[in-house]
Amino acid sequence: MPIITLTTDFGLTDGYVAAMKGVIAGIAPQATVIDITHQLAPQNVRDAAYVLASVLPYFPPGAVHLAVVDPGVGSARRPIAAAVGDQFLVGPDNGLFTCVWQSGQPAACIALDNPAYWRPQVSHTFHGRDIFAPVAAHLANGVALAALGTAIADPLLFDVLAPQRRLDGSLAGQIIHVDHFGNLVSNIPGDWLAGRGWAVHIAGRQLLGPSLSYAAAAPGQLLALVSRGATLEIALRDGSAASRLRVAVGEPIVAHPHETGSSA
Amino acid sequence: MPIITLTTDFGLTDGYVAAMKGVIAGIAPQATVIDITHQLAPQNVRDAAYVLASVLPYFPPGAVHLAVVDPGVGSARRPIAAAVGDQFLVGPDNGLFTCVWQSGQPAACIALDNPAYWRPQVSHTFHGRDIFAPVAAHLANGVALAALGTAIADPLLFDVLAPQRRLDGSLAGQIIHVDHFGNLVSNIPGDWLAGRGWAVHIAGRQLLGPSLSYAAAAPGQLLALVSRGATLEIALRDGSAASRLRVAVGEPIVAHPHETGSSA
Amino acid sequence: MPIITLTTDFGLTDGYVAAMKGVIAGIAPQATVIDITHQLAPQNVRDAAYVLASVLPYFPPGAVHLAVVDPGVGSARRPIAAAVGDQFLVGPDNGLFTCVWQSGQPAACIALDNPAYWRPQVSHTFHGRDIFAPVAAHLANGVALAALGTAIADPLLFDVLAPQRRLDGSLAGQIIHVDHFGNLVSNIPGDWLAGRGWAVHIAGRQLLGPSLSYAAAAPGQLLALVSRGATLEIALRDGSAASRLRVAVGEPIVAHPHETGSSA
Repeated sequence: MPIITLTTDFGLTDGYVAAMKGVIAGIAPQATVIDITHQLAPQNVRDAAYVLASVLPYFPPGAVHLAVVDPGVGSARRPIAAAVGDQFLVGPDNGLFTCVWQSGQPAACIALDNPAYWRPQVSHTFHGRDIFAPVAAHLANGVALAALGTAIADPLLFDVLAPQRRLDGSLAGQIIHVDHFGNLVSNIPGDWLAGRGWAVHIAGRQLLGPSLSYAAAAPGQLLALVSRGATLEIALRDGSAASRLRVAVGEPIVAHPHETGSSA
Repeated sequence: MPIITLTTDFGLTDGYVAAMKGVIAGIAPQATVIDITHQLAPQNVRDAAYVLASVLPYFPPGAVHLAVVDPGVGSARRPIAAAVGDQFLVGPDNGLFTCVWQSGQPAACIALDNPAYWRPQVSHTFHGRDIFAPVAAHLANGVALAALGTAIADPLLFDVLAPQRRLDGSLAGQIIHVDHFGNLVSNIPGDWLAGRGWAVHIAGRQLLGPSLSYAAAAPGQLLALVSRGATLEIALRDGSAASRLRVAVGEPIVAHPHETGSSA
Repeated sequence: MPIITLTTDFGLTDGYVAAMKGVIAGIAPQATVIDITHQLAPQNVRDAAYVLASVLPYFPPGAVHLAVVDPGVGSARRPIAAAVGDQFLVGPDNGLFTCVWQSGQPAACIALDNPAYWRPQVSHTFHGRDIFAPVAAHLANGVALAALGTAIADPLLFDVLAPQRRLDGSLAGQIIHVDHFGNLVSNIPGDWLAGRGWAVHIAGRQLLGPSLSYAAAAPGQLLALVSRGATLEIALRDGSAASRLRVAVGEPIVAHPHETGSSA
């Protein structure tokens, strides 16, 4: 049972996602198709890249991840496919796989220029249906990556601000994702906080932590903890930290060593 | 692996869709169930008919399409099933399949009056679960359409305003769907625009086109192009044309031959 | 084809649900995963309990229902699994299965304390991915419930206000769920209304009923009927009763015997 996942900004009110699933079902009827999300902010390639990278570690070998957030569809941007570890990526060459490639092994990367694996007619507006869906289905069927096109060495990557360990022992990063609950997910690895307490500063507030879990705070209280994604996160127990702090992606966050923080 | 698709206005916050999937899983456990959408505007049969017809061409032979937008559930309106080409439709007889039947071959159509293929108890309020889901599952299992009930020749179709080629060479149509991105999808076939440039008029604006792709416009600019659904569409690069133009379904759109339009 | 259903408040914009599906696909690749809903109000355990119980009757034997609405994740609350009839439940011990256990047979209930069936590393913030998903997958694979941990006799149940038959013949209950359409679902069983007419009082209005179906009312009219869930419901034909009456969960509803009500 090969797995194909789908990550798009298409929403769920039209037939766009279903058209891709119909194409996949026609080529790889035995594949299990799993939605990552279709509710990414339209054209937000960076957030798509974050969400996609956050789920890859939980999928089994051979999984094919099709992602389409594609403001440049129909322009000169290339359609690509790649191997990362024992999984596959398919989508536009616009930086969408940046976060995967940061954490993964170096990837074999292919420009999709072999139309034998596309739909017979390819539109200028919907490569998700006409190129990426059939290519993902053929990969799931066992077609070799190399058969799909020409190897390339220069896939587009966008700049990623890395978290920093400063000389004074503090850790500096930023918010890189706001989740469904309004939790503020930073890029500071949870590992960096292990073994001692910290004072976390964000938006003029100081929070001692990390707390062990959401339940460690009283309802309505802010807390700093190592989140589902194994990075430092700011949450509001039973509420939205993003609304409370009026904070969005890009907000700076700094952690200083602190005696009275917890020591998760 | 037979395919059953689901198209409803049930939303995703209740257990209504899941109850249908449970019934299907009990009768046709090997079927692959694919959601088209469950977020149609409540009771909007016309939009449902558009979305359903837009995805059928991408599904393989044998697919069973179950659709329920059903303000008349429990009244005298008939439950029906039909064959269109090599696919099947199941749902209420309220016009939901109008757009499919416009583009498809003449259909064998059956009034579902054989309760042997229903759930043992049928409610007056949820035929999706009690009649349509089991009937779709039995079709997916290979039960013959004719076994499900009595052939009928008069399924309900609503009036569809067809696009027009006018004597002066212009093309007149209307907006028939607003998608997740705020793109305005018209009923003017893309074929009609091929080979020359056009000046497209909508809501007091004139747009030269068709453009080849969304990427052909600068961010924030309106454009006219042939869309994912192969008809003329008005889009706003990286934004919502519906919000910009304050336009909804039903808005007239006219294209005049024009020297300086593009010639996609 | 074993079935695993998912019910959460995780929303569909992040990778949280997909991470659980990836874990399941790695352990039980042949399982069919069905979403009940992921759009429950954050932390609303009571509504989750209602929705979960509303769908169980429609699933086949052996189905494994994984539910995660879990404000206490990481605290002392136990992870549990249980058998109810011929189906299984997996989730936190916080009352989430209260409504299932009200209507179901007494359950064998297990505290999940055998880490052999968990992911190797268990976070304090995401038991859905690290404990519940792998446990559900192992159950779907046929692992015995008893192997997963230690039997317990005291799962947490929250108080449920039962509907009442009063001495004067009237029926008293409350609204327990507001659905996607704005229908107001009460806890008064439809059976109690059978065989005669009733005057239903809610929010200062009186409605004669029960009506047989939504179609029995004119567009824009309120009606009382026995709903999809087999209880008394207040609906607005082609609209939202919740918006019209400004009513939410907890609102009292009373039905008095009435000569001129209908007699569904």
